[in-house]
Amino acid sequence: MPKGKSVNAEAARIIKSAIEDHEFYHFAVDSSRKVTIVDAGVNTIGSALAGVLVTDICLGGLGKTHLTFKKYGSDHLPSVFVEIWSPAVATLGSQYAGWEIKTEDYFAMGSGPARALALKPRNLYEKIGYRDQADEAVLVLESEKLPTQTAIEYLVDECDVSPEDLYLVVTPTSSLAGSVQIAGRVVETGVHKLVELGMDPKSIVFGSGFAPLPPVHPNPARAMGRTNDAILYGGVTHYTVNMDDDETLMRLVSAAPSSTSRHYGKPFYEILKDAKYDFYKIDPDLFAPSVVSVSNMKTGFTYTAGQVNEDILREVLGQRRLPKVDHQT
Amino acid sequence: MPKGKSVNAEAARIIKSAIEDHEFYHFAVDSSRKVTIVDAGVNTIGSALAGVLVTDICLGGLGKTHLTFKKYGSDHLPSVFVEIWSPAVATLGSQYAGWEIKTEDYFAMGSGPARALALKPRNLYEKIGYRDQADEAVLVLESEKLPTQTAIEYLVDECDVSPEDLYLVVTPTSSLAGSVQIAGRVVETGVHKLVELGMDPKSIVFGSGFAPLPPVHPNPARAMGRTNDAILYGGVTHYTVNMDDDETLMRLVSAAPSSTSRHYGKPFYEILKDAKYDFYKIDPDLFAPSVVSVSNMKTGFTYTAGQVNEDILREVLGQRRLPKVDHQT
Amino acid sequence: MPKGKSVNAEAARIIKSAIEDHEFYHFAVDSSRKVTIVDAGVNTIGSALAGVLVTDICLGGLGKTHLTFKKYGSDHLPSVFVEIWSPAVATLGSQYAGWEIKTEDYFAMGSGPARALALKPRNLYEKIGYRDQADEAVLVLESEKLPTQTAIEYLVDECDVSPEDLYLVVTPTSSLAGSVQIAGRVVETGVHKLVELGMDPKSIVFGSGFAPLPPVHPNPARAMGRTNDAILYGGVTHYTVNMDDDETLMRLVSAAPSSTSRHYGKPFYEILKDAKYDFYKIDPDLFAPSVVSVSNMKTGFTYTAGQVNEDILREVLGQRRLPKVDHQT
Repeated sequence: MPKGKSVNAEAARIIKSAIEDHEFYHFAVDSSRKVTIVDAGVNTIGSALAGVLVTDICLGGLGKTHLTFKKYGSDHLPSVFVEIWSPAVATLGSQYAGWEIKTEDYFAMGSGPARALALKPRNLYEKIGYRDQADEAVLVLESEKLPTQTAIEYLVDECDVSPEDLYLVVTPTSSLAGSVQIAGRVVETGVHKLVELGMDPKSIVFGSGFAPLPPVHPNPARAMGRTNDAILYGGVTHYTVNMDDDETLMRLVSAAPSSTSRHYGKPFYEILKDAKYDFYKIDPDLFAPSVVSVSNMKTGFTYTAGQVNEDILREVLGQRRLPKVDHQT
Repeated sequence: MPKGKSVNAEAARIIKSAIEDHEFYHFAVDSSRKVTIVDAGVNTIGSALAGVLVTDICLGGLGKTHLTFKKYGSDHLPSVFVEIWSPAVATLGSQYAGWEIKTEDYFAMGSGPARALALKPRNLYEKIGYRDQADEAVLVLESEKLPTQTAIEYLVDECDVSPEDLYLVVTPTSSLAGSVQIAGRVVETGVHKLVELGMDPKSIVFGSGFAPLPPVHPNPARAMGRTNDAILYGGVTHYTVNMDDDETLMRLVSAAPSSTSRHYGKPFYEILKDAKYDFYKIDPDLFAPSVVSVSNMKTGFTYTAGQVNEDILREVLGQRRLPKVDHQT
Repeated sequence: MPKGKSVNAEAARIIKSAIEDHEFYHFAVDSSRKVTIVDAGVNTIGSALAGVLVTDICLGGLGKTHLTFKKYGSDHLPSVFVEIWSPAVATLGSQYAGWEIKTEDYFAMGSGPARALALKPRNLYEKIGYRDQADEAVLVLESEKLPTQTAIEYLVDECDVSPEDLYLVVTPTSSLAGSVQIAGRVVETGVHKLVELGMDPKSIVFGSGFAPLPPVHPNPARAMGRTNDAILYGGVTHYTVNMDDDETLMRLVSAAPSSTSRHYGKPFYEILKDAKYDFYKIDPDLFAPSVVSVSNMKTGFTYTAGQVNEDILREVLGQRRLPKVDHQT
């Protein structure tokens, strides 16, 4: 990837414009501690629009998100559609939740452009050959809490920007904005899996996909369960790549969808419980969209593996169809 | 709803920008009578784009509309998708056609932000706890005619703004813009029904949905028939709410779709004719989308009632499939 | 069509704004030869986003394009959706690839707004009653090569603008941008066929439709094959017209879809090969969407002919479904 746009500069442009219209997004903005904290669901109700915004921010302006409806079995579900024009940088270099933020009194999964300044994790940036240079930094925190003072100081230090130039957008898993922005990771999840399997991220030139918008669950562990389920059992992705060898590509695509995992078929919440809530005990093969489809520009073929699993989806998303009521007179 | 954005200020921003580009929208603008009259289908052809614009205006900027295609049975129909970020204010406080405008020489159904200044009807604004404060007012008139001088004076008076600051957008039922903007009421119709059944409008935090774009019918009564049919038999909606009690929610959702009405199953035009063209004799239960689905953020469950009725839809929308023609050599 | 917007002025506004953000679009900009050459896929990778942009440019700002997913059989394919608010001018007057550009050392299919300045072909502009007046001109070149000096001089001369005011956007058939922008001609293709059959283009007031995004094929002839196939076998269109006579309309719609051609059923590449690569030997009836649906505002009826052909589509787009892989441990 050549120099290209700064993902932080683009994300800063997006968040600053949204802050002016913060009432549309139902988020609260606090600049009293020098950094700008945008609360999209901790002490505010947040909104689906804020979730779309957070997804666009996570993509560093290198992609675009919109809401739509998709049919799953006989049900029409609100769904999140994402298109990504520079997949390596936008997903691995920015959107991927690759920064585990832990201080004495705070925990959050960090994602978005600021990772590219703090180089979290450094080897991934070497792999994609991307470095950002920006005066401003934007980080998305998936957390049930607003950042504490120690967390703020740690983040300012790691991002190496003036506190006034750091934007922290907080979206709890159990919030509307959280639901949208996690479903909005459907394309990223597929990139990550394909790259783990051996694909060169720089060979991916376009990605798009969708996943059902998982309804908010009040319990954070169950919310985390179903936001993952939306991708594992309902995520559909398509990528355009430049690869010399279709044999290798077929092998990668075959192994890409979530159904290749031994955990496949159970709600993510159950898998997490079986793993005693230790993410690192879960088979990493599971973290993938249900459908992965890849078109190779060098050969003209498209390979598809995996399927949407509507039965599990209905169960894990807590959908109940009510019996027909006859007219009341 | 706290203070929040002014729906009139937002709608004024939208219409003023569109007036500059009026040729795209195929509407005519007349400021010769002090107020600004935007004709989106009376003496001009209007356009689907104008219909999308009018829907966004009706939502006071608190939602967004786009056109898409949806599959109904074996037919792909152009459809209107709407998402609403502040449902109570955007629908009941603005989009709802709750202002019957009648002067000696004019009749129109009034909808959109200006209702929030004129407080039409007042009790609804108390229910949603919303008051707008704005120097400009934007009103959408569903009518086959442009407003007369008496109507203009009445509206200026009721909105209590300077004539120069009042924007009147006129969309006949029998017009492209009219078709889009009425189908664009699909989410509002469901909010209205749920609230009539007893739901607190302030508990609804997000709404989205779609309906087929009803083809324009030259006869205003039949046009009114099929624009309603598009919602009653083809409207699909989803809401996110905050409610303590799933028992109550299930009861409300069960009773929400149009199929709970005793009139259900007949074209709206027939129902209207049976009621001797008196709207007020029609069972109010009928005015609802065909599918109503509600996710409760407090419990994590989603309840769905109703179904799209593709057979009636094909009939009421006047769809004819032509036999296959063999090649002509 | 009355004076209306200048399609060139609108397209110039779009391309100039995109040039500022050229890194998003992955295109290269060269102004060293006075005219501005935007390379969207010859020596650059290009992008789907650039394809959306080129489609909007081709429509002269009188329509809008977005990417989505559509289900074809059991496959979800990335697809291009287009809506057009002034179909006669936007399609025949601008988007239609009606300018065959041939100089001693260059060949390209020319489309987009600049055609309306060069009047290519002149009789079509008489038919739609449109003339553009603009200081700037934007032309889209479907070609595997950047324009040569002779081509540039010819184009400046034909468009009759200062070289500094001519924008040439080059999209090879075998490129991501090319795939999107050709699929984005689905609505235009239907207008063209209906008008060839005898419909007055000025009677068409709205058009929308979609086609699957054909995966890039490295071989230009095969790429041309499948980009056409995407429309012939997967294109779905809808038009709103103003016509006095439904008998005539039914006849036109019956004859409109691609299935009325004697070539129907074979991959376009095979048809082209059979015609010894001479386009002009191909039955012109073939060039049409698979589904054509028309609503008449004057009668309220909608007539539909043709069907998506999912089996051929899977073959011609080179789709391969991979067998399920069991988990690896």
